[in-house]
Amino acid sequence: MQFHLNGLQTGDPAIHEANGESADTDRLSKEVDVLIVGSGPAGLTLAAQLSAFPEIKTLIVEQKDGPLKLGQADGIACRTMEMFEAFGFSERVLKEACWISETVFWKPDETNRQNIVRSGRIQDTEDGLSEFPHVVLNQARVHDFYLDVMRHSPSRLRPHYSRRLVDLEIDPDKSAAVTLGAVDYPVKAVLERTDLANEGERETVRARYVVGCDGARSAVRNSLGRSLHGDSANQAWGVMDVLAVTDFPDIRMKAAIHSANEGNILVIPREGGYLVRLYIELDKLKEDERVANRNITSDQLVAAARRILHPYTLDVKEIAWWSVYEIGQRLCEKFDDVPAEAVNDRLPHVFIAGDACHTHSPKAGQGMNISMRDTFNLGWKLASVLLGRCSPQILHTYTTERQTVAKELIDFDREFAKMFSAPPKGSPEDKGNGIDPAEFQKYFVQQGRFTAGTAIQYYPSLISVEPTYQHLAKGLEIGKRFHSAPVIRLADAKPIHLGHTVKADGRWRLFLFAGSGDPTKIDSAIYLLCKFLCESSDSPIRRYTPSGADIDSVIDVRAICQQSFRKLSLDVFPAMLWPRKGRYGLHDYEKVFCPDLKSGQDIFDMRAIEREKGCMVIVRPDQHIAHVLPLDAHEELAAFFAGFMLDAD
Amino acid sequence: MQFHLNGLQTGDPAIHEANGESADTDRLSKEVDVLIVGSGPAGLTLAAQLSAFPEIKTLIVEQKDGPLKLGQADGIACRTMEMFEAFGFSERVLKEACWISETVFWKPDETNRQNIVRSGRIQDTEDGLSEFPHVVLNQARVHDFYLDVMRHSPSRLRPHYSRRLVDLEIDPDKSAAVTLGAVDYPVKAVLERTDLANEGERETVRARYVVGCDGARSAVRNSLGRSLHGDSANQAWGVMDVLAVTDFPDIRMKAAIHSANEGNILVIPREGGYLVRLYIELDKLKEDERVANRNITSDQLVAAARRILHPYTLDVKEIAWWSVYEIGQRLCEKFDDVPAEAVNDRLPHVFIAGDACHTHSPKAGQGMNISMRDTFNLGWKLASVLLGRCSPQILHTYTTERQTVAKELIDFDREFAKMFSAPPKGSPEDKGNGIDPAEFQKYFVQQGRFTAGTAIQYYPSLISVEPTYQHLAKGLEIGKRFHSAPVIRLADAKPIHLGHTVKADGRWRLFLFAGSGDPTKIDSAIYLLCKFLCESSDSPIRRYTPSGADIDSVIDVRAICQQSFRKLSLDVFPAMLWPRKGRYGLHDYEKVFCPDLKSGQDIFDMRAIEREKGCMVIVRPDQHIAHVLPLDAHEELAAFFAGFMLDAD
Repeated sequence: MQFHLNGLQTGDPAIHEANGESADTDRLSKEVDVLIVGSGPAGLTLAAQLSAFPEIKTLIVEQKDGPLKLGQADGIACRTMEMFEAFGFSERVLKEACWISETVFWKPDETNRQNIVRSGRIQDTEDGLSEFPHVVLNQARVHDFYLDVMRHSPSRLRPHYSRRLVDLEIDPDKSAAVTLGAVDYPVKAVLERTDLANEGERETVRARYVVGCDGARSAVRNSLGRSLHGDSANQAWGVMDVLAVTDFPDIRMKAAIHSANEGNILVIPREGGYLVRLYIELDKLKEDERVANRNITSDQLVAAARRILHPYTLDVKEIAWWSVYEIGQRLCEKFDDVPAEAVNDRLPHVFIAGDACHTHSPKAGQGMNISMRDTFNLGWKLASVLLGRCSPQILHTYTTERQTVAKELIDFDREFAKMFSAPPKGSPEDKGNGIDPAEFQKYFVQQGRFTAGTAIQYYPSLISVEPTYQHLAKGLEIGKRFHSAPVIRLADAKPIHLGHTVKADGRWRLFLFAGSGDPTKIDSAIYLLCKFLCESSDSPIRRYTPSGADIDSVIDVRAICQQSFRKLSLDVFPAMLWPRKGRYGLHDYEKVFCPDLKSGQDIFDMRAIEREKGCMVIVRPDQHIAHVLPLDAHEELAAFFAGFMLDAD
Repeated sequence: MQFHLNGLQTGDPAIHEANGESADTDRLSKEVDVLIVGSGPAGLTLAAQLSAFPEIKTLIVEQKDGPLKLGQADGIACRTMEMFEAFGFSERVLKEACWISETVFWKPDETNRQNIVRSGRIQDTEDGLSEFPHVVLNQARVHDFYLDVMRHSPSRLRPHYSRRLVDLEIDPDKSAAVTLGAVDYPVKAVLERTDLANEGERETVRARYVVGCDGARSAVRNSLGRSLHGDSANQAWGVMDVLAVTDFPDIRMKAAIHSANEGNILVIPREGGYLVRLYIELDKLKEDERVANRNITSDQLVAAARRILHPYTLDVKEIAWWSVYEIGQRLCEKFDDVPAEAVNDRLPHVFIAGDACHTHSPKAGQGMNISMRDTFNLGWKLASVLLGRCSPQILHTYTTERQTVAKELIDFDREFAKMFSAPPKGSPEDKGNGIDPAEFQKYFVQQGRFTAGTAIQYYPSLISVEPTYQHLAKGLEIGKRFHSAPVIRLADAKPIHLGHTVKADGRWRLFLFAGSGDPTKIDSAIYLLCKFLCESSDSPIRRYTPSGADIDSVIDVRAICQQSFRKLSLDVFPAMLWPRKGRYGLHDYEKVFCPDLKSGQDIFDMRAIEREKGCMVIVRPDQHIAHVLPLDAHEELAAFFAGFMLDAD
């Protein structure tokens, strides 16, 4: 955490000074830069991201009458934890959540098929996949953490509740208006208040951009004339959060249980040490029969769970929350308002994210994760365009990148759900659709990187390149998220994770991995690159950093050397690597790192960095790797940024 | 974190349900169990500790008109971080504080004695000393974290500001009254309001116990007729928190700098990455000359710092806080109201803690640490006596234990301060009192465990025994704090630190380290011990746990096995190790642990536990080890607790 740059500030450094305007009124602003419809995980991630930019006026509305208290999603993948670290609250989640370390598998006992027996166990997350564990926490608490980020931001952003979107219009005549400076607001939204005191009152908001994070029945999506396509489910599942007494020995592990004839359960232990979530497979629905018509009760769910767990007992003392739903893998064809055939002519102004564009079963714990990462992808792009830093063309990459991810998720989920629901292979129930429990376990292991969220890869576009120089950093794959590794900060010898320098602040990172020579020599590649960045008129830092702004405010340059921190001294590095910042021109001492040689965790080995010549790695504001280049590829570096960035001032 | 035991609770689990009474009034209660005078580190640690007990009525008053915002102490030793973990906010400190990883030493350049050169560098804290680093953070933020603990407690405890103690009387006729049930309040305190609106108004509070945490000029201490003895200082130091530009390369390290003729500086980098604290030695004071008379200005401090740092430059942009003080090592002869000759006849009712009983130089960063640990020692004792769990005789151990620690600290500080202030040996300034810089560095390393706070050892008393069975657990020294080590929790395979199960909740811990056999066999020592604890009328759990209370509410039993967690299953352990608790009788799954074999960090090796037979380790509520016993020493276990505990009900 860095603070006190512009003078000492007392109190909690996570609470930013308010930028003047009081947000105490419940009235909506009439004109905003971004209107977010919906305050679920997608909406709150976007709101928290935009709250990092005091210049941007954001409004977030929610149909419900207050923050979520209970239930819904709970799985938090490793990759999502990395994102929470960027938002500054990973330690709160680590402390409060239940950690999933092992996954166990249970199947029918072949000697007595009414009983279940443990058939296997695996480590839940493979070693080294992420510096964070896979955890489970009530979605409501994740919301709370985002709400805190928003509340502590300069704009004191908070959702306006009890607002239903009733109409959305995009004015094609104003569609050129894309940045903060423009006078026009291309989108008009009409909202209706749903609280008793103001019921039916309508408010009109004009926005530069609107993002629909309003769930599977998204009004924003409907207003675009888009819909979800796919299988709308014929399999019903019940989910319950319970406090129960049981002698089932794996009740604090993630456990996939297949019974012979009574169906299947997925056990998810929950935060606090006592609560547990049970996903219970219900019997097949009849064609076109909807869950809502089946009048399933919580008693029926408990009874089903008891049958499946036999011979173990389950005495449910309290049902904290429960629901019944159908599995349906559905996907929207495009995540913005621009028709596929018009992408070369039009710029998007309305987006959809989260369940508004993809729905799937909850069993792989992906829903909340993928929704949050949708808007983590979109947030910085919107901010960069609004601030005039980037060409609005980058907004097209939101749908291309995230629709592909959603498609992969849905394909995975379809397969996983099918395997989960299938009877054990060769059992009397096997009608040719049986799955060997060992096969299921194997699939589970194989897909570990996918469910952890670390396998997600964005394909080449304006902001992500072909992997021409991938061999220089084989462990840092272009298109995937920057895979963090431990390092030692040179100035103070603090052990940190390099990836944790990538905060959710809209900045690009340029990691310079030094070659094997002395990085402080004036003919070293690091030195020459810093000289280029400081002095050349082609330098992306000179071109894109507004005058008067700190040198790292748009592109943040950091160097990683191969030597022990005891062999180097920061004061002989180029000035760019201990730059002067803020109103006092204080040195920033947090730009240069060394490998953690003592622990044996050398980042150059761990990420297979080419040692002789080193390389540079360009990381997007959403932590994905955009480019890998040789340290002397000054022109290619300049060309990459020139492809989508706009000159400052 | 465990929660939801008695039903699901929404919101932040760290915020306890209020116990009814509103604390919104600024009026003081007329009768309280504990009155704490002073809201510095000692007072707040005690208040936070007592706020864990909803039955105990605590009042904390402070002479200042509000919480501290700035300045004063900043060093947080490893041992103190362990205590913060027990209070539940270590992660907040880790995130916000500056970590001290290295300490560097500078001395006069022999080739040009006007300059300084680096003479050595060492790792600040030796490997394995604690699972926590040595950190530095503004004292005001430590206060904030305690205030949050208090605010979130059932009693919503908060300090009452602008109150000055004017009179304190102990009524000897009421001195038998020591527990919550007693009708009398032996101590009468008169407080005067100092805020403008209520200036001069007096309030009388009757208390069972009063604790003076009111600083070096303690009114509580004075009312007892006690005073500080020792050297009241002839060496002046200035301290400044500055934002500055410098080319001194170790400005983000802890740096001890000895110049030839200009004095000495201790550099302490501070939180946020920019702020730095400089302790600057000023020239010798004349006999009996007080700092206040010297009119030293901050400009003079800056000028002195610049001279000492030569040839490096220092351009101070902002002085966030500064002060000048004298070194004085002073100690009070006893930390309570009972004269030494009367300890067999009388029970203490008034205590002093922190600077009220010991003062010393701030350079070893001990002051705040030792003060907080004073009241961490006292807090559980007061609570246990008030609740009727322990004999009031244990209150005598506060002064015997903490006065000894303070004496050791002062002896250390005197030596350290002398070495710090001495000229380099053999230099022209050496008048026979010179110190070899290498000697100073060596002393610094040797004293590392002391300054980290992990060397503190309490001597045998009612609540800490002679080390008869120390050989069973050589790495867990009786009298010292329980040295944590990593383990895997059996039920959910979560990697945790065993020591972090010892929370600041007033409970005793009984760690059962299993022998090499199968701990689940009914003739194993673990099984037999659990049987004794469950069934015997001598069992301390049966004797001291109130009926209706959870089985672990007074003594918390946990077992550590030698096998991998994959080899064991919790459901075959004795019921005491997965006990049923709360209104639903839910199982507590967090009592059994296994070594972290995969990481190679086997707690049995790390703490030298006797593998064949195992042992039990009794840990006090303040994390210090009271006893080590063989697993079959049922009688000695019972006898130990019988020495100071009182039968429940």
